[in-house]
Amino acid sequence: MGITPTRIAIDAMGGDYAPSQIVEGAIQAQETHGVKVLLVGDPQKIKACINHKSNQPLPEIVPAEEIVEMHEEPLTAIRRKSKASINVAMNLVKQKEADAVVSAGHSGAAMASALLRLGRLSGIDRPAIGAVLPTMVPKKPVLILDVGANVDCRPKFLEQFAVMGTIYSEYVLGTTEPKVGLLNIGEEPSKGNDLSVRTHQILQENNQIKFIGNAEGRDVLSGSFDVIVCDGFAGNVLLKFAEAVGDAVLQMMKEELTPGLSGKIGTAILRPNLKRMKQRIDHVEHGGGLLLGVGGICIISHGSSKAIAISNAIRSARDAVENKVIERINSNYVPENHKSIVSNQ
Amino acid sequence: MGITPTRIAIDAMGGDYAPSQIVEGAIQAQETHGVKVLLVGDPQKIKACINHKSNQPLPEIVPAEEIVEMHEEPLTAIRRKSKASINVAMNLVKQKEADAVVSAGHSGAAMASALLRLGRLSGIDRPAIGAVLPTMVPKKPVLILDVGANVDCRPKFLEQFAVMGTIYSEYVLGTTEPKVGLLNIGEEPSKGNDLSVRTHQILQENNQIKFIGNAEGRDVLSGSFDVIVCDGFAGNVLLKFAEAVGDAVLQMMKEELTPGLSGKIGTAILRPNLKRMKQRIDHVEHGGGLLLGVGGICIISHGSSKAIAISNAIRSARDAVENKVIERINSNYVPENHKSIVSNQ
Repeated sequence: MGITPTRIAIDAMGGDYAPSQIVEGAIQAQETHGVKVLLVGDPQKIKACINHKSNQPLPEIVPAEEIVEMHEEPLTAIRRKSKASINVAMNLVKQKEADAVVSAGHSGAAMASALLRLGRLSGIDRPAIGAVLPTMVPKKPVLILDVGANVDCRPKFLEQFAVMGTIYSEYVLGTTEPKVGLLNIGEEPSKGNDLSVRTHQILQENNQIKFIGNAEGRDVLSGSFDVIVCDGFAGNVLLKFAEAVGDAVLQMMKEELTPGLSGKIGTAILRPNLKRMKQRIDHVEHGGGLLLGVGGICIISHGSSKAIAISNAIRSARDAVENKVIERINSNYVPENHKSIVSNQ
Repeated sequence: MGITPTRIAIDAMGGDYAPSQIVEGAIQAQETHGVKVLLVGDPQKIKACINHKSNQPLPEIVPAEEIVEMHEEPLTAIRRKSKASINVAMNLVKQKEADAVVSAGHSGAAMASALLRLGRLSGIDRPAIGAVLPTMVPKKPVLILDVGANVDCRPKFLEQFAVMGTIYSEYVLGTTEPKVGLLNIGEEPSKGNDLSVRTHQILQENNQIKFIGNAEGRDVLSGSFDVIVCDGFAGNVLLKFAEAVGDAVLQMMKEELTPGLSGKIGTAILRPNLKRMKQRIDHVEHGGGLLLGVGGICIISHGSSKAIAISNAIRSARDAVENKVIERINSNYVPENHKSIVSNQ
């Protein structure tokens, strides 16, 4: 959009492989995704990671003196360490010096920092974390939210997740009239726990979304749904299970397909096919979680993110910024515009 | 056990492929698992399926005039159709003419029939459905319960699931000192929703089980846990998702591995390896769900069960009977015995 590239602030100090893989991913993204990255953290340590990339334009470094460690209680750490890299990154968005934040550090701390510094959007009671998973239908991912921000939910929270998810799916994932499902244990409206029965009714009455009914566990990856809403407990269990299953399948392929001479020959012949399958399964290919409902774009990547995952997360952040996700969610900002988008559903 | 074989009553009319695949699976089980099967249902239709197997001992047929259809409200149907095949099968166990029931029909109806005819075991507030999934560690399955019987749970229900699951894992799955986990969204005791925080504490204080802490979604298939307890909502979502993922991976292997000449050659060479992997993933190989907490062994198989799944379910039922799972759960029946089993943990 426009003349200046989208500016993404990266918490260079957060994540299992920080800062080296974070820096490498940021540089990759700057080269391939047309963004300007701002690396936030210890300048010495960041510079040590980029010395060898001297023929590329160096990313800008924004100094931050502190780090929120993984064991820290998020809210306390965020309040106490005002100069922590995640806080400095969020401040860049708040001060309009960056358009989005990407962090692979302490996810609770990133959420707390976003809430305190960027605030909630009007009309949103609880921000949610959305995760994009591949489905059985190629190039047709499903957005699941919430995957961990809110363990105990009320029906109206899930309704807000559905509206935010619809906007993200439409404008960032490129879905036409996203089909929304409610995670549940049966197809009928009467099925499920207290939360899901009450939410089903509310979603049916909401004309901002295209609610097509309950989504059972077996439907999540079917490609029949574009957005699936659930409380953060079920969503988190599902997401972590899905990621682990992906890893498990990849490991199982290694264990079961390669033994023996025929295994070695067969897998050698199949290498490109196996690689394509790995790409479909591997969650690293699919960027990070999106914090929806706060006053800025914030991508929360896995702690285990390596360069490629960081680069993909930066691309997602860019897409969300350039497609004005925040403005669209913030119904006080463009209420008429948003209403016209969904009025014919 | 002993001189007379274990007698398994099969609802021959329940399931997508009833009666043909049910009958075939029952005959397979009678041949390979050393059980006596009682096929419950319409004698005409059952006989039509077994005519061609004349060189094998014919299974006994117990006539039942009615069928609970999949769309029926379970409790109403069970009360109204006293001669439904599932009711007749449960009555056989009640009257000690059979030792266990296997059904691939309406699962809610099977549960309602079991509750009404066999009753709850003493000390059990809510029966649970347990499902056995393969893990990343070969021959080390994990038992998850509840996977759908109770959507809204209290901490003491989950505690009872943990005790029943421990007994099933130890005596049917052959686990020494089963490691019990609580499905949750973090490792720390303070993590999770209201139910999981309160349940964590109760499980820690229970000396009948070996509780090793919270199990996150990523831990379910790791092999680190033998029994994982959760409410029926999260468990059902997880189970249906896991089964669908298994199917999805098998389909993806077909789609991604076979295209092209090298794909055809490679998969031909890998056929035995691919088959082994399929067996590890395919849920059909792992029998059915077990209804724990009622006064008899009752295996609830998938509606989509074919002969091999029915035969495996019958084997699970036999193992549960021969290892006295009911007697062991029913603490009023053998309280001292059970206490001695778990006292050194």
